[in-house]
Amino acid sequence: MSEQGQQSVSSRNLADFLGINPWQIRKDFSYFGGFGTPGVGYNTEKLIKQINKILKLDVAHKAVLVGVGNLGSVVLAYPGFKIYGFDIVAAFDTDPKKIGRKVKNITIEDVSNLQTLKKRKISLAIIAVPSDAAQQTADALVEAGVKGILNFSPCYITVPKKVKVTTIDIAMDLARLPYYMPAS
Amino acid sequence: MSEQGQQSVSSRNLADFLGINPWQIRKDFSYFGGFGTPGVGYNTEKLIKQINKILKLDVAHKAVLVGVGNLGSVVLAYPGFKIYGFDIVAAFDTDPKKIGRKVKNITIEDVSNLQTLKKRKISLAIIAVPSDAAQQTADALVEAGVKGILNFSPCYITVPKKVKVTTIDIAMDLARLPYYMPAS
Repeated sequence: MSEQGQQSVSSRNLADFLGINPWQIRKDFSYFGGFGTPGVGYNTEKLIKQINKILKLDVAHKAVLVGVGNLGSVVLAYPGFKIYGFDIVAAFDTDPKKIGRKVKNITIEDVSNLQTLKKRKISLAIIAVPSDAAQQTADALVEAGVKGILNFSPCYITVPKKVKVTTIDIAMDLARLPYYMPAS
Repeated sequence: MSEQGQQSVSSRNLADFLGINPWQIRKDFSYFGGFGTPGVGYNTEKLIKQINKILKLDVAHKAVLVGVGNLGSVVLAYPGFKIYGFDIVAAFDTDPKKIGRKVKNITIEDVSNLQTLKKRKISLAIIAVPSDAAQQTADALVEAGVKGILNFSPCYITVPKKVKVTTIDIAMDLARLPYYMPAS
Protein backbone atom coordinates (compact mmCIF):
# COMPACT_ATOMS: atom_id res chain seq x y z
CA MET A 1 0.00 0.00 0.00
CA SER A 2 2.81 2.33 0.90
CA GLU A 3 4.61 1.52 -2.35
CA GLN A 4 1.42 2.32 -4.25
CA GLY A 5 1.26 5.74 -2.61
CA GLN A 6 -1.64 4.97 -0.26
CA GLN A 7 -1.23 7.34 2.69
CA SER A 8 -3.68 5.81 5.12
CA VAL A 9 -5.34 2.50 5.77
CA SER A 10 -8.37 1.68 7.91
CA SER A 11 -8.61 -1.19 10.35
CA ARG A 12 -11.33 -2.55 8.03
CA ASN A 13 -8.95 -2.54 5.04
CA LEU A 14 -6.38 -4.44 7.05
CA ALA A 15 -8.99 -6.81 8.50
CA ASP A 16 -10.40 -7.67 5.05
CA PHE A 17 -6.88 -8.32 3.81
CA LEU A 18 -6.19 -10.71 6.70
CA GLY A 19 -9.63 -12.28 6.92
CA ILE A 20 -10.19 -11.19 10.54
CA ASN A 21 -12.41 -8.65 12.34
CA PRO A 22 -11.52 -4.91 12.36
CA TRP A 23 -11.90 -4.75 16.14
CA GLN A 24 -9.17 -7.36 16.47
CA ILE A 25 -6.81 -5.15 14.50
CA ARG A 26 -7.65 -2.13 16.69
CA LYS A 27 -7.38 -4.15 19.88
CA ASP A 28 -4.02 -5.64 18.92
CA PHE A 29 -2.55 -2.29 17.94
CA SER A 30 -3.92 -0.71 21.12
CA TYR A 31 -1.58 -2.91 23.17
CA PHE A 32 1.30 -1.02 21.62
CA GLY A 33 -0.13 2.42 22.17
CA GLY A 34 -2.77 2.73 19.43
CA PHE A 35 -1.34 4.76 16.58
CA GLY A 36 -4.47 5.31 14.50
CA THR A 37 -6.87 8.23 14.17
CA PRO A 38 -10.59 7.38 14.58
CA GLY A 39 -12.45 7.87 11.29
CA VAL A 40 -9.21 8.27 9.35
CA GLY A 41 -7.26 5.11 10.06
CA TYR A 42 -3.56 4.54 10.22
CA ASN A 43 -0.89 6.45 8.38
CA THR A 44 0.72 3.70 6.27
CA GLU A 45 4.31 4.95 6.60
CA LYS A 46 3.98 5.42 10.35
CA LEU A 47 2.27 2.05 10.76
CA ILE A 48 5.08 0.26 8.89
CA LYS A 49 7.63 1.96 11.14
CA GLN A 50 5.73 1.05 14.31
CA ILE A 51 5.26 -2.56 13.29
CA ASN A 52 8.93 -2.86 12.31
CA LYS A 53 9.83 -1.51 15.72
CA ILE A 54 7.54 -3.96 17.52
CA LEU A 55 9.01 -6.84 15.51
CA LYS A 56 12.56 -5.58 16.10
CA LEU A 57 13.03 -5.09 12.39
CA ASP A 58 13.80 -1.38 12.67
CA VAL A 59 17.52 -2.05 12.64
CA ALA A 60 19.57 -3.66 9.87
CA HIS A 61 20.55 -7.28 10.48
CA LYS A 62 23.60 -8.99 9.11
CA ALA A 63 23.37 -12.71 8.43
CA VAL A 64 25.66 -15.39 7.06
CA LEU A 65 25.03 -18.49 5.01
CA VAL A 66 26.69 -21.83 5.72
CA GLY A 67 26.60 -24.27 2.81
CA VAL A 68 26.71 -22.97 -0.75
CA GLY A 69 25.20 -25.94 -2.60
CA ASN A 70 22.04 -25.81 -4.71
CA LEU A 71 19.84 -24.56 -1.92
CA GLY A 72 22.49 -22.19 -0.55
CA SER A 73 22.87 -20.64 -3.99
CA VAL A 74 19.12 -20.05 -4.13
CA VAL A 75 19.30 -18.38 -0.72
CA LEU A 76 22.17 -16.13 -1.83
CA ALA A 77 20.24 -15.10 -4.94
CA TYR A 78 16.99 -14.55 -3.05
CA PRO A 79 15.94 -10.91 -3.39
CA GLY A 80 13.41 -10.86 -0.53
CA PHE A 81 15.75 -10.41 2.43
CA LYS A 82 16.23 -6.70 1.83
CA ILE A 83 12.52 -6.02 2.50
CA TYR A 84 13.10 -6.82 6.17
CA GLY A 85 16.47 -5.10 6.38
CA PHE A 86 18.52 -8.27 6.14
CA ASP A 87 21.86 -8.47 4.44
CA ILE A 88 23.70 -11.72 3.76
CA VAL A 89 27.27 -10.56 4.28
CA ALA A 90 29.26 -13.81 4.22
CA ALA A 91 29.05 -17.40 3.01
CA PHE A 92 30.90 -20.50 4.16
CA ASP A 93 31.52 -23.96 2.74
CA THR A 94 33.85 -26.94 3.30
CA ASP A 95 34.46 -27.65 -0.39
CA PRO A 96 37.98 -26.46 -1.40
CA LYS A 97 36.66 -25.94 -4.94
CA LYS A 98 34.10 -23.46 -3.67
CA ILE A 99 36.21 -21.62 -1.10
CA GLY A 100 37.56 -18.39 -2.56
CA ARG A 101 34.95 -18.25 -5.31
CA LYS A 102 32.77 -15.17 -5.54
CA VAL A 103 28.97 -15.42 -5.55
CA LYS A 104 26.89 -12.23 -5.57
CA ASN A 105 29.87 -10.15 -4.42
CA ILE A 106 30.50 -12.50 -1.52
CA THR A 107 33.71 -14.51 -1.38
CA ILE A 108 33.01 -18.00 -0.05
CA GLU A 109 35.05 -18.66 3.09
CA ASP A 110 36.23 -21.83 4.76
CA VAL A 111 33.89 -22.92 7.56
CA SER A 112 36.82 -22.72 9.97
CA ASN A 113 36.37 -18.95 9.62
CA LEU A 114 33.03 -19.20 11.43
CA GLN A 115 34.82 -18.41 14.66
CA THR A 116 35.36 -14.86 13.39
CA LEU A 117 31.63 -14.10 13.47
CA LYS A 118 31.69 -12.77 17.03
CA LYS A 119 34.37 -10.26 16.08
CA ARG A 120 32.35 -9.35 12.99
CA LYS A 121 29.24 -8.83 15.16
CA ILE A 122 27.05 -11.21 13.18
CA SER A 123 24.39 -13.01 15.19
CA LEU A 124 22.15 -14.53 12.49
CA ALA A 125 22.96 -17.54 10.32
CA ILE A 126 21.28 -19.66 7.68
CA ILE A 127 22.21 -23.35 7.57
CA ALA A 128 21.94 -25.02 4.15
CA VAL A 129 24.34 -27.94 4.63
CA PRO A 130 23.59 -31.67 4.25
CA SER A 131 21.62 -33.14 7.18
CA ASP A 132 24.58 -35.05 8.61
CA ALA A 133 26.58 -31.82 8.96
CA ALA A 134 23.76 -29.68 10.38
CA GLN A 135 24.36 -30.28 14.09
CA GLN A 136 28.11 -29.63 13.98
CA THR A 137 27.44 -26.49 11.94
CA ALA A 138 24.92 -25.32 14.54
CA ASP A 139 27.44 -26.05 17.32
CA ALA A 140 30.09 -23.97 15.56
CA LEU A 141 27.63 -21.12 15.04
CA VAL A 142 26.55 -21.11 18.69
CA GLU A 143 30.21 -21.20 19.73
CA ALA A 144 30.75 -18.17 17.49
CA GLY A 145 28.01 -16.23 19.30
CA VAL A 146 25.18 -16.65 16.80
CA LYS A 147 21.77 -16.10 18.46
CA GLY A 148 19.37 -16.96 15.64
CA ILE A 149 19.52 -19.79 13.12
CA LEU A 150 17.35 -20.45 10.09
CA ASN A 151 17.83 -24.16 9.40
CA PHE A 152 17.11 -25.57 5.95
CA SER A 153 18.52 -29.01 6.71
CA PRO A 154 15.58 -31.37 7.18
CA CYS A 155 16.65 -32.53 10.63
CA TYR A 156 16.39 -31.50 14.25
CA ILE A 157 19.27 -29.52 15.66
CA THR A 158 19.85 -28.98 19.34
CA VAL A 159 20.98 -25.59 20.64
CA PRO A 160 21.15 -23.84 24.02
CA LYS A 161 17.92 -22.11 25.09
CA LYS A 162 19.30 -18.63 24.45
CA VAL A 163 19.52 -19.44 20.73
CA LYS A 164 16.41 -19.35 18.54
CA VAL A 165 16.15 -21.87 15.70
CA THR A 166 13.58 -22.03 12.93
CA THR A 167 13.69 -25.16 10.80
CA ILE A 168 12.20 -25.04 7.34
CA ASP A 169 11.15 -28.46 6.10
CA ILE A 170 9.51 -28.00 2.73
CA ALA A 171 8.30 -31.62 2.75
CA MET A 172 6.44 -30.98 5.99
CA ASP A 173 4.96 -27.80 4.57
CA LEU A 174 3.70 -29.81 1.61
CA ALA A 175 2.51 -32.55 3.97
CA ARG A 176 0.30 -30.07 5.81
CA LEU A 177 -1.83 -29.35 2.76
CA PRO A 178 -3.85 -32.58 2.40
CA TYR A 179 -5.28 -32.12 5.89
CA TYR A 180 -7.00 -28.94 4.76
CA MET A 181 -7.99 -30.14 1.30
CA PRO A 182 -11.55 -31.31 0.65
CA ALA A 183 -11.85 -35.04 0.02
CA SER A 184 -12.00 -35.61 -3.71
CA MET B 1 12.53 -44.01 17.20
CA SER B 2 10.84 -46.56 14.98
CA GLU B 3 13.82 -46.58 12.62
CA GLN B 4 16.07 -47.21 15.60
CA GLY B 5 14.00 -50.24 16.59
CA GLN B 6 12.32 -48.65 19.59
CA GLN B 7 9.04 -50.52 20.01
CA SER B 8 7.30 -48.26 22.49
CA VAL B 9 7.45 -44.67 23.64
CA SER B 10 5.96 -43.04 26.73
CA SER B 11 4.04 -39.79 26.83
CA ARG B 12 6.95 -38.49 28.93
CA ASN B 13 9.49 -39.34 26.19
CA LEU B 14 7.36 -37.53 23.63
CA ALA B 15 6.73 -34.60 25.96
CA ASP B 16 10.44 -34.13 26.71
CA PHE B 17 11.17 -34.21 23.00
CA LEU B 18 8.59 -31.50 22.31
CA GLY B 19 9.17 -29.42 25.42
CA ILE B 20 5.58 -29.78 26.67
CA ASN B 21 3.81 -31.64 29.50
CA PRO B 22 3.10 -35.40 29.30
CA TRP B 23 -0.56 -34.85 30.21
CA GLN B 24 -0.94 -32.64 27.15
CA ILE B 25 0.28 -35.52 24.97
CA ARG B 26 -2.16 -37.94 26.60
CA LYS B 27 -5.03 -35.47 26.45
CA ASP B 28 -4.44 -34.69 22.78
CA PHE B 29 -4.21 -38.34 21.77
CA SER B 30 -7.32 -39.15 23.83
CA TYR B 31 -9.38 -36.99 21.47
CA PHE B 32 -8.62 -39.53 18.76
CA GLY B 33 -9.42 -42.57 20.83
CA GLY B 34 -6.36 -42.94 23.05
CA PHE B 35 -4.11 -45.59 21.60
CA GLY B 36 -1.62 -46.05 24.46
CA THR B 37 -1.34 -48.60 27.26
CA PRO B 38 -0.99 -47.13 30.81
CA GLY B 39 2.46 -47.92 32.26
CA VAL B 40 3.76 -49.10 28.88
CA GLY B 41 3.19 -46.19 26.55
CA TYR B 42 2.50 -46.16 22.87
CA ASN B 43 3.56 -48.73 20.33
CA THR B 44 5.75 -46.66 17.99
CA GLU B 45 4.66 -48.33 14.74
CA LYS B 46 1.00 -48.12 15.66
CA LEU B 47 1.37 -44.52 16.81
CA ILE B 48 2.97 -43.51 13.51
CA LYS B 49 0.12 -45.14 11.61
CA GLN B 50 -2.52 -43.45 13.77
CA ILE B 51 -0.94 -40.04 13.45
CA ASN B 52 -0.54 -40.45 9.68
CA LYS B 53 -4.21 -41.32 9.49
CA ILE B 54 -5.23 -38.30 11.58
CA LEU B 55 -3.11 -36.04 9.38
CA LYS B 56 -4.45 -37.68 6.20
CA LEU B 57 -0.95 -38.87 5.32
CA ASP B 58 -1.89 -42.55 5.21
CA VAL B 59 -2.38 -42.41 1.46
CA ALA B 60 0.22 -41.58 -1.19
CA HIS B 61 0.00 -38.10 -2.67
CA LYS B 62 1.06 -37.07 -6.12
CA ALA B 63 2.28 -33.52 -6.61
CA VAL B 64 3.60 -31.44 -9.48
CA LEU B 65 6.15 -28.66 -9.67
CA VAL B 66 5.65 -25.51 -11.72
CA GLY B 67 8.85 -23.60 -12.47
CA VAL B 68 12.12 -25.47 -12.88
CA GLY B 69 14.58 -22.68 -12.15
CA ASN B 70 17.16 -22.69 -9.36
CA LEU B 71 14.63 -23.15 -6.59
CA GLY B 72 12.52 -25.61 -8.58
CA SER B 73 15.60 -27.74 -9.18
CA VAL B 74 16.27 -27.82 -5.45
CA VAL B 75 12.68 -28.90 -4.86
CA LEU B 76 12.98 -31.69 -7.46
CA ALA B 77 16.19 -32.94 -5.85
CA TYR B 78 14.80 -32.71 -2.31
CA PRO B 79 14.79 -36.17 -0.73
CA GLY B 80 12.43 -35.40 2.14
CA PHE B 81 9.07 -35.68 0.35
CA LYS B 82 9.07 -39.47 0.42
CA ILE B 83 8.91 -39.50 4.24
CA TYR B 84 5.38 -38.17 4.05
CA GLY B 85 4.36 -40.31 1.08
CA PHE B 86 4.70 -37.55 -1.48
CA ASP B 87 5.83 -38.10 -5.00
CA ILE B 88 6.63 -35.30 -7.43
CA VAL B 89 5.37 -36.84 -10.66
CA ALA B 90 5.57 -33.96 -13.13
CA ALA B 91 7.29 -30.62 -13.68
CA PHE B 92 6.30 -27.67 -15.86
CA ASP B 93 8.06 -24.62 -17.24
CA THR B 94 7.55 -21.96 -19.90
CA ASP B 95 11.14 -21.95 -21.17
CA PRO B 96 11.38 -23.80 -24.55
CA LYS B 97 14.99 -24.68 -23.68
CA LYS B 98 13.82 -26.55 -20.58
CA ILE B 99 10.70 -28.21 -21.97
CA GLY B 100 11.46 -31.80 -22.97
CA ARG B 101 14.57 -32.01 -20.77
CA LYS B 102 14.69 -34.75 -18.20
CA VAL B 103 15.37 -33.98 -14.52
CA LYS B 104 15.30 -36.80 -11.96
CA ASN B 105 13.37 -39.09 -14.36
CA ILE B 106 10.78 -36.37 -14.95
CA THR B 107 10.40 -34.85 -18.41
CA ILE B 108 9.71 -31.12 -18.11
CA GLU B 109 6.40 -30.23 -19.75
CA ASP B 110 5.01 -27.02 -21.19
CA VAL B 111 2.82 -25.16 -18.68
CA SER B 112 -0.03 -25.39 -21.19
CA ASN B 113 -0.16 -29.06 -20.16
CA LEU B 114 -1.33 -28.04 -16.69
CA GLN B 115 -4.90 -28.52 -17.86
CA THR B 116 -4.25 -32.29 -17.98
CA LEU B 117 -3.82 -32.47 -14.19
CA LYS B 118 -7.49 -33.20 -13.53
CA LYS B 119 -7.37 -36.20 -15.86
CA ARG B 120 -4.14 -37.30 -14.17
CA LYS B 121 -5.82 -37.02 -10.75
CA ILE B 122 -3.19 -34.71 -9.28
CA SER B 123 -4.45 -32.25 -6.70
CA LEU B 124 -1.22 -30.89 -5.16
CA ALA B 125 1.19 -28.42 -6.73
CA ILE B 126 4.34 -26.55 -5.82
CA ILE B 127 4.81 -23.09 -7.34
CA ALA B 128 8.42 -21.99 -7.86
CA VAL B 129 7.97 -19.40 -10.59
CA PRO B 130 9.00 -15.72 -10.53
CA SER B 131 6.67 -13.53 -8.45
CA ASP B 132 5.07 -11.84 -11.46
CA ALA B 133 3.94 -15.21 -12.82
CA ALA B 134 2.71 -16.67 -9.53
CA GLN B 135 -0.93 -15.55 -9.69
CA GLN B 136 -1.53 -16.74 -13.24
CA THR B 137 0.13 -20.05 -12.36
CA ALA B 138 -2.16 -20.41 -9.35
CA ASP B 139 -5.19 -19.58 -11.52
CA ALA B 140 -4.20 -22.29 -14.03
CA LEU B 141 -3.69 -24.81 -11.23
CA VAL B 142 -7.08 -24.05 -9.65
CA GLU B 143 -8.69 -24.30 -13.10
CA ALA B 144 -7.03 -27.72 -13.44
CA GLY B 145 -8.60 -28.92 -10.20
CA VAL B 146 -5.64 -28.52 -7.84
CA LYS B 147 -6.76 -28.30 -4.19
CA GLY B 148 -3.49 -27.62 -2.38
CA ILE B 149 -0.66 -25.27 -3.35
CA LEU B 150 2.75 -24.82 -1.77
CA ASN B 151 3.87 -21.39 -2.95
CA PHE B 152 7.55 -20.45 -2.97
CA SER B 153 7.06 -17.18 -4.81
CA PRO B 154 7.42 -14.39 -2.25
CA CYS B 155 4.03 -12.84 -3.00
CA TYR B 156 0.40 -13.19 -2.08
CA ILE B 157 -1.72 -15.31 -4.37
CA THR B 158 -5.50 -15.32 -4.34
CA VAL B 159 -7.42 -18.57 -4.70
CA PRO B 160 -11.00 -19.75 -4.07
CA LYS B 161 -11.77 -20.79 -0.49
CA LYS B 162 -11.85 -24.51 -1.34
CA VAL B 163 -8.15 -24.36 -2.23
CA LYS B 164 -5.49 -24.37 0.51
CA VAL B 165 -2.33 -22.34 -0.05
CA THR B 166 0.82 -22.29 2.05
CA THR B 167 3.32 -19.59 1.13
CA ILE B 168 6.93 -20.07 2.11
CA ASP B 169 8.78 -16.79 2.40
CA ILE B 170 12.30 -17.55 3.60
CA ALA B 171 12.96 -13.86 4.19
CA MET B 172 10.01 -13.68 6.57
CA ASP B 173 11.20 -16.81 8.35
CA LEU B 174 14.58 -15.16 8.83
CA ALA B 175 12.86 -11.93 9.87
CA ARG B 176 11.07 -13.73 12.71
CA LEU B 177 14.30 -14.64 14.47
CA PRO B 178 15.45 -11.25 15.84
CA TYR B 179 12.21 -10.91 17.81
CA TYR B 180 13.15 -13.97 19.85
CA MET B 181 16.84 -13.21 20.15
CA PRO B 182 18.24 -11.68 23.32
CA ALA B 183 19.42 -8.10 22.91
CA SER B 184 23.18 -8.12 22.43
